[in-house]
Amino acid sequence: MPQSMSEPTLDVVAIGHAIVDVLSHADDAELERLRLSKGTMALIDADQAENLYAAMAPAVEVSGGSAANTAAGIASFGGAAAFVGKVRDDELGAVFSHDIRAEGVEFATPPADKGPATARCLVLVTPDAQRTMSTYLGAASGLRPDDLDDEVITRARVTYLEGYLWDPPEAIDALRRAMDVAHGAGRRVAFSLSDPFCVERHRDEFLGLLDADVDVLFANEAEVMSLTGAGYLHEALEALAGRCELVAVTRGPEGSVVVDGDAVFEVPAMPVDEVVDTTGAGDLYAAGFLYGLTHGADAETCASLGGVAAAEVISHVGARPQVSLSQVADQAELSLAKPTGDDHRP
Amino acid sequence: MPQSMSEPTLDVVAIGHAIVDVLSHADDAELERLRLSKGTMALIDADQAENLYAAMAPAVEVSGGSAANTAAGIASFGGAAAFVGKVRDDELGAVFSHDIRAEGVEFATPPADKGPATARCLVLVTPDAQRTMSTYLGAASGLRPDDLDDEVITRARVTYLEGYLWDPPEAIDALRRAMDVAHGAGRRVAFSLSDPFCVERHRDEFLGLLDADVDVLFANEAEVMSLTGAGYLHEALEALAGRCELVAVTRGPEGSVVVDGDAVFEVPAMPVDEVVDTTGAGDLYAAGFLYGLTHGADAETCASLGGVAAAEVISHVGARPQVSLSQVADQAELSLAKPTGDDHRP
Repeated sequence: MPQSMSEPTLDVVAIGHAIVDVLSHADDAELERLRLSKGTMALIDADQAENLYAAMAPAVEVSGGSAANTAAGIASFGGAAAFVGKVRDDELGAVFSHDIRAEGVEFATPPADKGPATARCLVLVTPDAQRTMSTYLGAASGLRPDDLDDEVITRARVTYLEGYLWDPPEAIDALRRAMDVAHGAGRRVAFSLSDPFCVERHRDEFLGLLDADVDVLFANEAEVMSLTGAGYLHEALEALAGRCELVAVTRGPEGSVVVDGDAVFEVPAMPVDEVVDTTGAGDLYAAGFLYGLTHGADAETCASLGGVAAAEVISHVGARPQVSLSQVADQAELSLAKPTGDDHRP
Repeated sequence: MPQSMSEPTLDVVAIGHAIVDVLSHADDAELERLRLSKGTMALIDADQAENLYAAMAPAVEVSGGSAANTAAGIASFGGAAAFVGKVRDDELGAVFSHDIRAEGVEFATPPADKGPATARCLVLVTPDAQRTMSTYLGAASGLRPDDLDDEVITRARVTYLEGYLWDPPEAIDALRRAMDVAHGAGRRVAFSLSDPFCVERHRDEFLGLLDADVDVLFANEAEVMSLTGAGYLHEALEALAGRCELVAVTRGPEGSVVVDGDAVFEVPAMPVDEVVDTTGAGDLYAAGFLYGLTHGADAETCASLGGVAAAEVISHVGARPQVSLSQVADQAELSLAKPTGDDHRP
């Protein structure tokens, strides 16, 4: 790729769905009555969203969205992050915009002034701390190429894309253009597979991305196995080795494994007193990893930073950090100096 | 007052501000920077609300409002409650409406289709668990007499009014009309003084209400002292004795005191492991008291039910109960049978 034209002023720009989570409690019987399958994420339309919301217990609204959570995590480490995603000019759109900016993340995507409402994810938390999610994507899936500001992409060391967004043709055009602009400016592209069903729907395209368009791949075990068709994790990792620069695979309580060229590192998970809510674990792992990567860390340190961020977010309800991740990293003796030049690799 | 025309089908209809709370954390230095006085509630206009929100940390949205919290508490005890209050037909209005209905409270006030947005209370929680509140009343203060459905008032054993609403002339007209309709149907009227500043602004009117319009008065120590001009609580209670049927005064960790005709009962507070957030304590005390009153309990039992409800709500963040108050009352051996007739008094 060509050399960067100017010094980057952002660590990461994350592109994904702009979503507000609507959280309430339910028991198993209620999930059954609502015909929801525990622990899954299902997409619903506006009518379904209205009916489900009407049936839900009193709720709490908190900003979410996978890539947006990652951007919030990077800012919490002290990194410079931006987010690109689409809200409507309604009140939940104002809530999303306020929260992401209040996290210290640059967010300048113009809100839609017509069309579907801001996306919401209706979350039912069962007594076993599992989350059952029904997402109305609304305005979020309306991201188009002209919502992308090339200048933000060129300013960022890494452009991070959420696989969830890879569905509406215009959003795919926007993501492809973001990758082109980033590589044109000599920057890296990172991609999250997001969800095994996402991988099923787009397997060939996602595999194609690895060879030319994506430098850093984030996934969990199920997603890399679905992507490669491998029966075991080590086979999946072998199949992916060399196809992109770095592959980071999260393994829940077993930590993560990173493929860095020919080398494979296993990094244990950070111990957690009590796992309260696992939502956002993958998003925050990516935040720590990318914060490390844009601050000159080696792949193992990147994975460890991902681990401390994931450990923080699973120890409370909610998918965004509740304490400063830079302090958490300090306590884990994982702090990094601010980079003086560009990435640690030539 | 005339005899009731038909059997009541509601225990309590509560009338007040329909507000969504927007909660975030701040430290003392931040309060100072924002020129907010810790622990107080201040009214702000739309511009101030926008500026303060922009300066606030990432937030969580939860439905609130004093009388609405009381209605939610009564429903949580298993009582039949309705709420009357004004939202705009915007998304926070939908959030408020969803939550109050999901608590099991009847809510049929038509939302405004123009004018100011749904009310919000911007809450900054400091590390000492205190709340500093800035309230934009918006649509909530737009309640007018024709928003009241006489049929709801006549169906309720008690009409409960929030003193906070006693400000815009049309809202005062609405509250006066509610009292007239309730008494015309042979029902009781309960009134909360809400806030010492509220009492300062409307002292003479509030005193006037006690003689003819209000049967049950709720207040805290500061409010009854401000109302009566007394220097000590016992003087305030003496001044109020006989002016209305029941006066219930909350005293924080010291419990409450009830004036019932000539008799005065002191009821100790329920012990709480840890006081996390005192917001809603008065609202939930009123809920327990009114649940008891509409279910044939004597004044002391009413005060004890108020105490268990207040104890539940101060043991967590948020001003609405998080567990079933009917179970809490069972555990405290304070459960009551469903009433078979009208109120316990002739």
